[in-house]
Amino acid sequence: MNIIIINGPNLNLLGTREKELYGETSFDDYFLYLKKKYSNLNLSYYQSNIEGELIDKIQEVGYTYDGIIINPGGYTHTSVAILDVIKSITTPVIEVHLSNIYSREEFRRKSLISFAVQGGVFGLGLKSYELALKFWAIKS
Amino acid sequence: MNIIIINGPNLNLLGTREKELYGETSFDDYFLYLKKKYSNLNLSYYQSNIEGELIDKIQEVGYTYDGIIINPGGYTHTSVAILDVIKSITTPVIEVHLSNIYSREEFRRKSLISFAVQGGVFGLGLKSYELALKFWAIKS
Amino acid sequence: MNIIIINGPNLNLLGTREKELYGETSFDDYFLYLKKKYSNLNLSYYQSNIEGELIDKIQEVGYTYDGIIINPGGYTHTSVAILDVIKSITTPVIEVHLSNIYSREEFRRKSLISFAVQGGVFGLGLKSYELALKFWAIKS
Amino acid sequence: MNIIIINGPNLNLLGTREKELYGETSFDDYFLYLKKKYSNLNLSYYQSNIEGELIDKIQEVGYTYDGIIINPGGYTHTSVAILDVIKSITTPVIEVHLSNIYSREEFRRKSLISFAVQGGVFGLGLKSYELALKFWAIKS
Amino acid sequence: MNIIIINGPNLNLLGTREKELYGETSFDDYFLYLKKKYSNLNLSYYQSNIEGELIDKIQEVGYTYDGIIINPGGYTHTSVAILDVIKSITTPVIEVHLSNIYSREEFRRKSLISFAVQGGVFGLGLKSYELALKFWAIKS
Amino acid sequence: MNIIIINGPNLNLLGTREKELYGETSFDDYFLYLKKKYSNLNLSYYQSNIEGELIDKIQEVGYTYDGIIINPGGYTHTSVAILDVIKSITTPVIEVHLSNIYSREEFRRKSLISFAVQGGVFGLGLKSYELALKFWAIKS
Amino acid sequence: MNIIIINGPNLNLLGTREKELYGETSFDDYFLYLKKKYSNLNLSYYQSNIEGELIDKIQEVGYTYDGIIINPGGYTHTSVAILDVIKSITTPVIEVHLSNIYSREEFRRKSLISFAVQGGVFGLGLKSYELALKFWAIKS
Amino acid sequence: MNIIIINGPNLNLLGTREKELYGETSFDDYFLYLKKKYSNLNLSYYQSNIEGELIDKIQEVGYTYDGIIINPGGYTHTSVAILDVIKSITTPVIEVHLSNIYSREEFRRKSLISFAVQGGVFGLGLKSYELALKFWAIKS
Amino acid sequence: MNIIIINGPNLNLLGTREKELYGETSFDDYFLYLKKKYSNLNLSYYQSNIEGELIDKIQEVGYTYDGIIINPGGYTHTSVAILDVIKSITTPVIEVHLSNIYSREEFRRKSLISFAVQGGVFGLGLKSYELALKFWAIKS
Amino acid sequence: MNIIIINGPNLNLLGTREKELYGETSFDDYFLYLKKKYSNLNLSYYQSNIEGELIDKIQEVGYTYDGIIINPGGYTHTSVAILDVIKSITTPVIEVHLSNIYSREEFRRKSLISFAVQGGVFGLGLKSYELALKFWAIKS
Amino acid sequence: MNIIIINGPNLNLLGTREKELYGETSFDDYFLYLKKKYSNLNLSYYQSNIEGELIDKIQEVGYTYDGIIINPGGYTHTSVAILDVIKSITTPVIEVHLSNIYSREEFRRKSLISFAVQGGVFGLGLKSYELALKFWAIKS
Amino acid sequence: MNIIIINGPNLNLLGTREKELYGETSFDDYFLYLKKKYSNLNLSYYQSNIEGELIDKIQEVGYTYDGIIINPGGYTHTSVAILDVIKSITTPVIEVHLSNIYSREEFRRKSLISFAVQGGVFGLGLKSYELALKFWAIKS
Repeated sequence: MNIIIINGPNLNLLGTREKELYGETSFDDYFLYLKKKYSNLNLSYYQSNIEGELIDKIQEVGYTYDGIIINPGGYTHTSVAILDVIKSITTPVIEVHLSNIYSREEFRRKSLISFAVQGGVFGLGLKSYELALKFWAIKS
Repeated sequence: MNIIIINGPNLNLLGTREKELYGETSFDDYFLYLKKKYSNLNLSYYQSNIEGELIDKIQEVGYTYDGIIINPGGYTHTSVAILDVIKSITTPVIEVHLSNIYSREEFRRKSLISFAVQGGVFGLGLKSYELALKFWAIKS
Repeated sequence: MNIIIINGPNLNLLGTREKELYGETSFDDYFLYLKKKYSNLNLSYYQSNIEGELIDKIQEVGYTYDGIIINPGGYTHTSVAILDVIKSITTPVIEVHLSNIYSREEFRRKSLISFAVQGGVFGLGLKSYELALKFWAIKS
Repeated sequence: MNIIIINGPNLNLLGTREKELYGETSFDDYFLYLKKKYSNLNLSYYQSNIEGELIDKIQEVGYTYDGIIINPGGYTHTSVAILDVIKSITTPVIEVHLSNIYSREEFRRKSLISFAVQGGVFGLGLKSYELALKFWAIKS
Repeated sequence: MNIIIINGPNLNLLGTREKELYGETSFDDYFLYLKKKYSNLNLSYYQSNIEGELIDKIQEVGYTYDGIIINPGGYTHTSVAILDVIKSITTPVIEVHLSNIYSREEFRRKSLISFAVQGGVFGLGLKSYELALKFWAIKS
Repeated sequence: MNIIIINGPNLNLLGTREKELYGETSFDDYFLYLKKKYSNLNLSYYQSNIEGELIDKIQEVGYTYDGIIINPGGYTHTSVAILDVIKSITTPVIEVHLSNIYSREEFRRKSLISFAVQGGVFGLGLKSYELALKFWAIKS
Repeated sequence: MNIIIINGPNLNLLGTREKELYGETSFDDYFLYLKKKYSNLNLSYYQSNIEGELIDKIQEVGYTYDGIIINPGGYTHTSVAILDVIKSITTPVIEVHLSNIYSREEFRRKSLISFAVQGGVFGLGLKSYELALKFWAIKS
Repeated sequence: MNIIIINGPNLNLLGTREKELYGETSFDDYFLYLKKKYSNLNLSYYQSNIEGELIDKIQEVGYTYDGIIINPGGYTHTSVAILDVIKSITTPVIEVHLSNIYSREEFRRKSLISFAVQGGVFGLGLKSYELALKFWAIKS
Repeated sequence: MNIIIINGPNLNLLGTREKELYGETSFDDYFLYLKKKYSNLNLSYYQSNIEGELIDKIQEVGYTYDGIIINPGGYTHTSVAILDVIKSITTPVIEVHLSNIYSREEFRRKSLISFAVQGGVFGLGLKSYELALKFWAIKS
Repeated sequence: MNIIIINGPNLNLLGTREKELYGETSFDDYFLYLKKKYSNLNLSYYQSNIEGELIDKIQEVGYTYDGIIINPGGYTHTSVAILDVIKSITTPVIEVHLSNIYSREEFRRKSLISFAVQGGVFGLGLKSYELALKFWAIKS
Repeated sequence: MNIIIINGPNLNLLGTREKELYGETSFDDYFLYLKKKYSNLNLSYYQSNIEGELIDKIQEVGYTYDGIIINPGGYTHTSVAILDVIKSITTPVIEVHLSNIYSREEFRRKSLISFAVQGGVFGLGLKSYELALKFWAIKS
Repeated sequence: MNIIIINGPNLNLLGTREKELYGETSFDDYFLYLKKKYSNLNLSYYQSNIEGELIDKIQEVGYTYDGIIINPGGYTHTSVAILDVIKSITTPVIEVHLSNIYSREEFRRKSLISFAVQGGVFGLGLKSYELALKFWAIKS
């Protein structure tokens, strides 16, 4: 089973920035933990700050992989183009957010992406990624 | 560990109504499955169509239980009073929706409750409940 | 043919409150008139001020009755949960209002319920109920 | 008793266009059925695609007739001038719609006309006209 | 000097409808009064309930007359087409309203036409027309 | 003189929840203080989390009591049905809020109820109730 | 007959500022012209840049004068207090604007004052004042 | 192949009005050019300032012609009735505008008609009509 | 204890204007009544129609007085500057309105001031002032 | 004559994704067809999923080419930066859309780009590109 | 070179109020520092809490001075009259704010004044004034 | 002291495009002038049309540099991702605009970035950059 986690802009700063909000673990460390614990799944990881590169990656994996877990960061609220690519592909997508976006600033309370995803998990910190992963882990 | 699942209006119809949208399993059957699989957790279940009774129940369990999983059904979009009671209690709450509310009718795309919960899972059918449960199951 | 009339909050005050707006007949008296005139139909009547009890009743009759005539009173404008239950059932529903809600206060000019009903009658006083009844009376 | 049914733009296409939505009966045929069944009422019928001609007709009958049943078609949502003429006349007016305009496209969910009419019937197909007619038929 | 007064829908009812709001004088009588008093101006008058006929008339006089006084009635608030024709012509236009449209229903407080006219007079009853006429009378 | 204080959802938690915002006194203790101090008034008290039960109570007392002091809690911002019942009764109603709702979250800054009450007191903690009571105490 | 013209902020600059928009005549010169031409009326004039001083003046003349012509300048769009004082007095008020405020910037297209005045004249330059004056001149 | 060009209000003024915006060619001259150049297509032309007459014409040709090119002029932004008739017919419709309506006044930037047409061409002057024609010319 | 009552524009007209809405007592008379009844408090009174003078006064007393009762009249809905000065001072402020501003015109239903005050009393006529005063009277 | 076609995000998927909506031809194949048919024009083609790369390309060609045909895909609705670059250059730009964006989801019905282009063609599938090309082909 | 700094309401409290937000320096002290450091410029200073007095001052200096630096305080967000006077004068104006108004309360994020000024500096404390001054200091 | 100037999309065109709006100096030339004049500061410069590359650069310098001056061009109004990265870093940021964005098109009057910056300078042409620089230059 091929599952990819795709992170959008500024998520490479995890563990560095705003620690009181996002915690002190870097995503690289967390990804190692996931990879080890779910070794029966074939997990991979991609991050970019560039909207178009995220789209390129989703096009690349979106017809053959079994699942995509995406945290589009700041593009969550503004990108029709990412919405479009998610609608184009056949792999099911789960949207993930570390923080509860619905209790933050007004402009963060609307996700353009949600319209096209299968489902989502929000507000549970890094554990949001693991719960999303469970969607496939429980199935298998 | 005491965890309660609280379902709001019309969720007692699960398995009966709009099967193409919500599936054919009744929540009672699904609850048995959860209870058996997570026997180390002390799971309970409550459903009511009456907004105030949901509030009564949340007040009753909200200071002693370890977790509340709530699907407020139609009250998700209109109830400031349920929002208030969730803010009053100390037990962490996870909001759950069977369907992807963000790809349905406009008035369903806004949850008043989300502002006060710890996090949420949406759009993954009955599995949404199990993923929410994992928040505690993985911890323990 | 089983037809039920369901009235929401404050409609038990009919004939008592705001007589210049709603007239002096109580609904109980009017119901007797209807029952007698349409004796070939099996008419029943239910009223509650509690949103969840209205939902309970709609669930109870919504799969076996031939018709529901509902005047949701003040819940007309705020209840997603009543909208949901109407969508769940199979009995056709006609929405009824005594007054012309579209010429009253701004917040009364929008019915959340209308989206899910088959049709409606408004603004014709108690006669609104009788016209709704005609939908089935003419058919039979 | 003089009652007139006034139909607005495109309703002359009834029975021809979008049959799955409006049925296969032409309004002319339906009017014959009404005329015959309610022969004690003096029924007449008028249709025009031109907004100003509808206003002319309403002015012509609006001081002497006993009732007007109007389906303003697409002008329902845009015509302040038809609203004005309804406010000017003394004959009571009932607004009628074949379909449930409140469950259609957003711009159709608002009727400018409703503000001035006595009441209305919507969503019950051609039977909407007959129910409106009952407002006078029951009285006589 | 050629000046024309153009009245829109329902203004032919003046003196008949809603007398408490618009008074008891018909516009025909009032026009005679104006014509006599301002005999040095060449006054004419036109009324139609049909939007397109108003446009036809404005096109006809809009390049040769010295002034147009228009009361577009209900089309004031909805007609982009009348706005367009006023922008197309070279004759200056003064907009007139009998009542103070800014203290009436919400949808009447916005005139689409005002954007294109030279100026306007509102709220002063039939005298609004005479004041508008003074714009030219004082000049000559 | 019969005066009743009616509290809506979650106000039974007073003294327990969010103490930094609402203080440590329970409403029961505070009511004893009021009852003793204003012994010449006949004070009573009712609380429910259920919207319809609040309506039932208002109907019960609304024609015979001399005054109603209501704090509708979370229903303040959403209940047309409570608004309706206040309009139906003859007893004057004063709306009360512990906190200054106009400096809190956006959705709390609008009270649907205010439209129908005689007046209100907000933001002065438990003393808001006593000031409301003074409206009758000063009169007597 | 006592008529006063009241000008709001910046209208003392007339003839100096933005001449292409407002012309080159100062209001003092124009007032002399009016005073001479309408010598049978007792005309006076007041200008202030201070909102409260305009209110003071309106209170002073508003119960004894026969007419007020007001151009509130920039306060037109923001002053509830001037609206209030116009509603308080008994002298009829006509609102005047030099330019067509409805074809200027968005925030200038709404007059708060219009709601309370008897009528208005706009867009006809200094002649707007004279036309307003005619409302009384024609009457006398 | 039968193709008709239908022009709405004020387009008969082409070549006369606002020449800097619309050019100096009248539509009649331009139509001759098109007819000659595309002589293998059976081209016809219709213009009216009256909304209802446009609807009449669309009904007349809308079931037998191969194509309709419509420029609804000012009705573009307000006519639900023209939208309705386009939805009723079976002939494909292409919407055409001389100017770029999306860079003009705010109220012109929304076309109600676009929802129902097959496609459109805007902003390219008279050439917009020819490009629309190419949709069929290239096909044949 | 030093308490000052500050009244904004037009409140000097109390007892004169709109008596059916505000009663026949002038505020000067009412202030004498308050001063006498609460002689243990050191009461003073200030009124101005000028926004900046109200600000001057609030600055003058806002660091030494024990309480300010303010009715900002028409500035309630528009003045950020009064809001600012209330936030700057240390004396607690109670906002007061004679009428129920929440059941009046739309633009009056929003108070900019409420955001910064401690609390408020509205809709209880002149008694609104006395109830506000009780906030300190009960304390002492 | 140098004409370039610039396609935005996800248009490289043409012929692969959502075939029922966009057809089965890839854009590469279609471009060959255009290039061959319009061999007298010097046609080129560019596609990128990255917003900034589209801007780079437009800057590169925008001062020397004779025409740009752009389909900005998902950036149509969100990119002020592409709007800016179109305004900066001197080459005329025609906006093209395969589908009728005005009959799709609400957020797709507004193009930020349209404000700055010369004109546009929408809803006619791949033929939209050819019609845009005709703007120059007819001219030459 | 004559430059004036004009401060609006409550800025006379600088150094006194909300010190954590605005610092402890009074504006008088700060002005001495500026005057001394930029002795080659002829600096002056004016403050008033009264909107109309600010307008008077701007009229007085606005045709002869070389520059105006204005901090309109609370009038920033509400005054069309100050906007008007800035448009009337010929002296260039720079708008200054101590705090970052775009990260404060919603109603503070919009400056009406900005539309008419040449430019602005915000959020840099008292240094905002000095940077504005540099606009002229660098030039000379 | 390390200060970097970061320019967003299309600012590489400075001196080329829309010269009447932005002047004829290229930013490279201007940067040389700044570098020479402020040789005691260590100035650097970066420009990109790609949103994600701007984010990369801000991450790179945002923890070690003393100041960032950013002109985000068209991304000012749409980029939540740039807002996010500014909130993540520790270096203070000053936002700069050449033109007065608050007097341009509606969609340009809102900066998403302003919420997170320390302060800003707008509307003063290239001098806006130099004034921003003064924030550090004066300090040192």
